[in-house]
Amino acid sequence: MMNEKSKALGRVTPMVQESESSPIRRMMKMMEERSDLLNLSAGEAAFDAPDTLIEAAVSAMREGRNRYTSTNGTPGIRNAVASFLKAEMGVSVDPDENVLMTVGGMEAIFLAFRLLVGAGDEVLLPDPGWGILRPITDRLGGTLRFYPLKKGDAWTIDPQAILDNISDTTKLVVINTPSNPTGATLSREGYAAVLEKAREHGVFVLSDEVYHNYVYEGGHVSALQFDHLDHVIMVNSFSKTFAVTGWRLGYAVAHPWVIRQMSVFKETISLCSFSIGQWALAGYLAGSRPYLDRVRELCRGNMERVVERLNAIPGVRCPKPVGGFYAFADFSGIEPSDEALFRRFLDGGVALVPGGFFGSQGAGHARIMFATDRALIDRALDRMEAALAS
Amino acid sequence: MMNEKSKALGRVTPMVQESESSPIRRMMKMMEERSDLLNLSAGEAAFDAPDTLIEAAVSAMREGRNRYTSTNGTPGIRNAVASFLKAEMGVSVDPDENVLMTVGGMEAIFLAFRLLVGAGDEVLLPDPGWGILRPITDRLGGTLRFYPLKKGDAWTIDPQAILDNISDTTKLVVINTPSNPTGATLSREGYAAVLEKAREHGVFVLSDEVYHNYVYEGGHVSALQFDHLDHVIMVNSFSKTFAVTGWRLGYAVAHPWVIRQMSVFKETISLCSFSIGQWALAGYLAGSRPYLDRVRELCRGNMERVVERLNAIPGVRCPKPVGGFYAFADFSGIEPSDEALFRRFLDGGVALVPGGFFGSQGAGHARIMFATDRALIDRALDRMEAALAS
Repeated sequence: MMNEKSKALGRVTPMVQESESSPIRRMMKMMEERSDLLNLSAGEAAFDAPDTLIEAAVSAMREGRNRYTSTNGTPGIRNAVASFLKAEMGVSVDPDENVLMTVGGMEAIFLAFRLLVGAGDEVLLPDPGWGILRPITDRLGGTLRFYPLKKGDAWTIDPQAILDNISDTTKLVVINTPSNPTGATLSREGYAAVLEKAREHGVFVLSDEVYHNYVYEGGHVSALQFDHLDHVIMVNSFSKTFAVTGWRLGYAVAHPWVIRQMSVFKETISLCSFSIGQWALAGYLAGSRPYLDRVRELCRGNMERVVERLNAIPGVRCPKPVGGFYAFADFSGIEPSDEALFRRFLDGGVALVPGGFFGSQGAGHARIMFATDRALIDRALDRMEAALAS
Repeated sequence: MMNEKSKALGRVTPMVQESESSPIRRMMKMMEERSDLLNLSAGEAAFDAPDTLIEAAVSAMREGRNRYTSTNGTPGIRNAVASFLKAEMGVSVDPDENVLMTVGGMEAIFLAFRLLVGAGDEVLLPDPGWGILRPITDRLGGTLRFYPLKKGDAWTIDPQAILDNISDTTKLVVINTPSNPTGATLSREGYAAVLEKAREHGVFVLSDEVYHNYVYEGGHVSALQFDHLDHVIMVNSFSKTFAVTGWRLGYAVAHPWVIRQMSVFKETISLCSFSIGQWALAGYLAGSRPYLDRVRELCRGNMERVVERLNAIPGVRCPKPVGGFYAFADFSGIEPSDEALFRRFLDGGVALVPGGFFGSQGAGHARIMFATDRALIDRALDRMEAALAS
């Protein structure tokens, strides 16, 4: 069965290089060999999903809501998303025209890139930033350009760095606020300035706000809070918000034409999104604030603990994240190679993501997920201290 | 917010024509205006999912299996799929190398087409056949070519018609057995001949077997039963098999290199598939035969009823499907336009899919889904009789 040299295989042009496979996947291979590992490398929270939501999903399953929904999503979930955005962010969107339910935030991002990026189109990404946007751009023939987050200043998303990089050749700018991996946010004034210049140059802004609940200073600033929906695509997800990453349910908010384009294409990749999650969240979303407050405060306490303990280690520098799930700490004073750093921590029994995976500015850094149990964080920090001292 | 003429929107090339939107979606719009409709147009069974499976999913949810899985799927579900294929089809596949869990069969098909079809590549599809493969091919720049099913002979999938169309310019042949919309199957001898010629010419075969449980004469013939995995991609889905289309969980079986290519690309469209479904089905699959037997026999009875009643209507001809969920009947003796036929049935209170949606040979036909309640089928047939007499 494994005839590597079949004529048919010989005629196929690879669509990916296997080396493009997510670094997380390669890390997981290494991690699988270690049973006692404390894993702070995941891109998801480790706390529990809300009981009420799980029970709503259980009821939906038993009531037989296991069938296809429409491609855009059920009217119930789209209405609930519109109400949620009104309550959480004070914005008004039309549930029928502006909202598309997607297979996690990932499908929303894929569809947006597929629509907006063609051969030679310039895409402006943050450095450091989530690594997966780079192969997506490459596969569409787009040209990558990076705007630096402010390394010396807690990785703030500097609007000037974005403005300086926007030109007539820019097609798409990605803003991730709060940011993965740094937790940095873009200020209200900064976002206003970016959107104005983007509009002038005919540039789309993809605003990845999947960590919107996890903001520790000031409130969340959404791209939807400015009157720019004609060139903004906001991506969000229930995965991060409610710790149900395995449900694969997110959404895009955009101009009606953009939503229709994404929806018709979505028919040919996923047909529709997970039905049970739509039914359950449609009823749950409006009452989700107490849960959201609780997990944000849990994360705030964890964040302060991680930052305090890391900064107490000589040679380590960890700026305080304004939002998100992650601390992004500088270990270059001890170990300048982040691959060597990853191995050193792994040998010490802790899995983190090497900073270089997030871009050139990440070298010598590591991403530490703190949306988990406080005791586990303390045990991991004990191990990290020992690994760094060894 | 709705400035249609923004500079940014003006720079975007549409990735789809809105008219490409699934005909089913346009029909659903028309159908929404009718509250008393009997709907036999769905592409899914209307009977219940297995209770045991639902309760396994409930347990998985409550146990917190709501997190990301690996992109290929959990080891548990891939092992269960391998065992299921051994028990059901007598084939041996490596769960680590040959199996990729996908967002329904749809994502598997999208990934396979994305890998195999480039500009100018010729794709050979059945006529009639599932409509969505045409826009997928178009968007990849492929060239469409059709092989006719045998209209005069219960729509049999004629191997000779496929063989006659395979040449050095062919890149991919799609076999859908049992077929949507006709229920026709490809014989064992026929499949062997097709695979031999395909291998000679370096042609990949995508075998869409999502209706594999629903075969009423002889057993299911799978592309995996021949020693051809170096140029075969088998697509299957739990959606149709267990009436959980809303779970979006399917799988591809292929050569290890093909699976790796599809998996790395999948990272950028869905990251992973629905976690709960993987956990629940991993435990359920091995004991699913009694359910599968029961629903197949239910469908057999429904199929015989539909065929009998339709053929009793003067001017209507309905060949007996060998498999699948659908009868594909010829109404051209009464109404040659299938759009007019669709409207006539809709006015009479029954929703069916016009045959033209499945290709040129479908004109004057309609697809009737029979995987539902017997009483509902009888009521729908009463209405169809009245509509045809009016």
